[in-house]
Amino acid sequence: MLDHYIQLYEKKTMRSRALFEQAMKRFPGGINHNIRFFEPYPFFTQKANGKYLHDIDNNAYVDYWMGHWSLILGHSHPAVVDALKQKIPEGTIFGTVNELSVRLADTINRLMPKAELMRFANTGAEATMHAVRLARAYTGRKVIAKIEGGWHGFNTDLLKSVNYPFDEDEGKGLLEEEMRNVVSIPFNDLDRSIKVLDSVKNGLAGIIVEPLLGGAGCIPPDPDYLRGLQEYAKHNNSLFILDEIVTGFRLSLRGAHHIFSLDPDLFTLGKVAGGGLPIGIVCGKKEVMELANPIGKGKGERCSIGGGTFSANPLGMAAGLATLAHLIENESIYERIDRLGELARNGIDKVMNENNVKVKTTGMGSLFLTHFLNDKVSDVKNALDVAKCDRELQRMYHFALIAKYGIFFLPHKLGAISSEHDSDDIKQLIDASDELAKGMRGSK
Amino acid sequence: MLDHYIQLYEKKTMRSRALFEQAMKRFPGGINHNIRFFEPYPFFTQKANGKYLHDIDNNAYVDYWMGHWSLILGHSHPAVVDALKQKIPEGTIFGTVNELSVRLADTINRLMPKAELMRFANTGAEATMHAVRLARAYTGRKVIAKIEGGWHGFNTDLLKSVNYPFDEDEGKGLLEEEMRNVVSIPFNDLDRSIKVLDSVKNGLAGIIVEPLLGGAGCIPPDPDYLRGLQEYAKHNNSLFILDEIVTGFRLSLRGAHHIFSLDPDLFTLGKVAGGGLPIGIVCGKKEVMELANPIGKGKGERCSIGGGTFSANPLGMAAGLATLAHLIENESIYERIDRLGELARNGIDKVMNENNVKVKTTGMGSLFLTHFLNDKVSDVKNALDVAKCDRELQRMYHFALIAKYGIFFLPHKLGAISSEHDSDDIKQLIDASDELAKGMRGSK
Repeated sequence: MLDHYIQLYEKKTMRSRALFEQAMKRFPGGINHNIRFFEPYPFFTQKANGKYLHDIDNNAYVDYWMGHWSLILGHSHPAVVDALKQKIPEGTIFGTVNELSVRLADTINRLMPKAELMRFANTGAEATMHAVRLARAYTGRKVIAKIEGGWHGFNTDLLKSVNYPFDEDEGKGLLEEEMRNVVSIPFNDLDRSIKVLDSVKNGLAGIIVEPLLGGAGCIPPDPDYLRGLQEYAKHNNSLFILDEIVTGFRLSLRGAHHIFSLDPDLFTLGKVAGGGLPIGIVCGKKEVMELANPIGKGKGERCSIGGGTFSANPLGMAAGLATLAHLIENESIYERIDRLGELARNGIDKVMNENNVKVKTTGMGSLFLTHFLNDKVSDVKNALDVAKCDRELQRMYHFALIAKYGIFFLPHKLGAISSEHDSDDIKQLIDASDELAKGMRGSK
Repeated sequence: MLDHYIQLYEKKTMRSRALFEQAMKRFPGGINHNIRFFEPYPFFTQKANGKYLHDIDNNAYVDYWMGHWSLILGHSHPAVVDALKQKIPEGTIFGTVNELSVRLADTINRLMPKAELMRFANTGAEATMHAVRLARAYTGRKVIAKIEGGWHGFNTDLLKSVNYPFDEDEGKGLLEEEMRNVVSIPFNDLDRSIKVLDSVKNGLAGIIVEPLLGGAGCIPPDPDYLRGLQEYAKHNNSLFILDEIVTGFRLSLRGAHHIFSLDPDLFTLGKVAGGGLPIGIVCGKKEVMELANPIGKGKGERCSIGGGTFSANPLGMAAGLATLAHLIENESIYERIDRLGELARNGIDKVMNENNVKVKTTGMGSLFLTHFLNDKVSDVKNALDVAKCDRELQRMYHFALIAKYGIFFLPHKLGAISSEHDSDDIKQLIDASDELAKGMRGSK
């Protein structure tokens, strides 16, 4: 079955195949982010606009990957394009303070007052690294608790228990010494989480958690779980850190912490906040963030975080501002894309189950991912459940969508709906899922 | 004396002063990179083009900071602006593989064949972090030797012995466990360096060094020093890692490793390579880089490095390509900016010394920085010498250039000449230095 789709794909993507051969001579694995590879080779995008990716073989794909879920307004939204075109002749990097950064920070602070102070960096990995450092600096403690399967970027600080099996190292070159002060807790299981937290109680600097488990499976939180973690942290004088790089400005203009009535000490933003240009932000309570203020402090008195050469560059600021301004003026976008998300989750599950393919499409708002259940797992509540699902069938499903239907999910990864998608797109996705389900049933 | 210039500056930058008050309510210290603050407050850049920064009070500055030395073609060079304007409507982030990244890699590989394979990330801090991880993965050893004062970004991995006093921690929130496997060696002192290296010999995974000591004082290497480190590393089966984020495409199109006939196992690029947009690259020998190839490997068999959400995004690729293409077609730029650098170094030293202000303007090619000597230091060969110089006088010199002459060096930091600067600019700088020297002599 998969072979059939691979043949179809190879026929449609001959130029991509040739170019990938070249790419492998320049990049290890031919890619610049591990997850961008998929079998037999990824197609090369030539350009992107609205909801579409166009590859170098002139195939178009309705894109649900949306730049690692960064693009809530779709590709090349006119508001962003216009802002960038205007700014580009005026400099791409000043290396100095600039007004746009203050305006973007003002906008974020108005929408998310819990971002009392913030520091702009260039990537999410930098932002979460800074959050860890701040938590340790503020508490004088060492241990950070993270979620099994939780993804916070490639920084050394949190590169632990990301991929199944979670108790094995995330690869060569990471030191036991570096990992010793990170412990892992299972998402949505408060009792087991508290047992782990209790075991490091006195040394616990902070708990970092994505409000919706993102890369690990698009799993919504049990609100009591997040509140339980927060309560534990507060009682224990540890910091409660929300990684809102995926959810911030994606689930609402006010953040997942607003939706779930949470009060994080620190939280991180990225992706949508940069409007499709590189950004990572750590923000939160003044008394914690002030540790990063270098003015008049010797190096031993401050917490030294970036920044970076490109931090707060005018292009990233302009793209972020244009995106947020458009979302503020058109806040009904959220209602619309959330409804499409609901339509997708319900519709895919319905047609799959009607065809006796047992699935659960998880997610929230405009984010969704279809998991293929089996004897080992009947519901999907955390990363271990995801690992036990039928990953091979999920891969075939996503790959078939690419090869036969021109619908792009990065295989295994959640989809994100943008303001450019409409109900016809979701209908097309559901119809395709229906057809594919019939084939899956047949192949069993 | 300083008071006089501060008054002058405050008079010229009243809108910046007011805006900085606002910035401090949003950002710890009002900035998004620690070094961007200077007393009494930094001016806000409104726009930049060619060699000029324009602030929000309508002051123009001849800019030698050049976006943390990223902009070898000046601000908003037409070649870069045109490339970006063309690409922006076609998408700012694909989240997939794309042809521009292969073309940029091809270009880099042609110019620097030692970049056999590369991985694009978004910042220099990510690139050096990846180099450290690869070195540990390849050798199975732990210890990384870095230079006292060496700056490789805000990553946790190398945030040690950056600021004087070098044996004190770089701030709160960094763990002893994380720093234990990093040792520091003094730049340009091979005997003392080898003593340190010998003490960790069996555990030494790699030596990372900027070929020209950058942020720590713009100090050229004794070529024997770099060769000595390389030889030590090779004999010891440790990796020799050059951090060419500042020097790559700045000192020559072929890298400092070409100028000094070095053979690094890994090296990092950034700044100029991204043409003013965020980039960081780790590259080097195939057998080392291949560890990052994830295809068909379990997580325990690979070295997991980024990438990142924004890695290899089409805008950064386009800006880098446009910059390198322009440099290849106009390679005489290097000759010209190097000559201007020489002119600046000699001219500043001459007028200062004629006025009995003892200085040494260090640097190489288009990079230069004036150090103010005193009883404690008569030459500047490493970061300890820099720390012993008269830093207060250096600050006054740079600040006076800003306040009185409209010449911008980030105080204490090296200057970078771009293709947009000319000999009149250097003459103006030397004349200003002459006038300031007279004042310094008077104030002593």
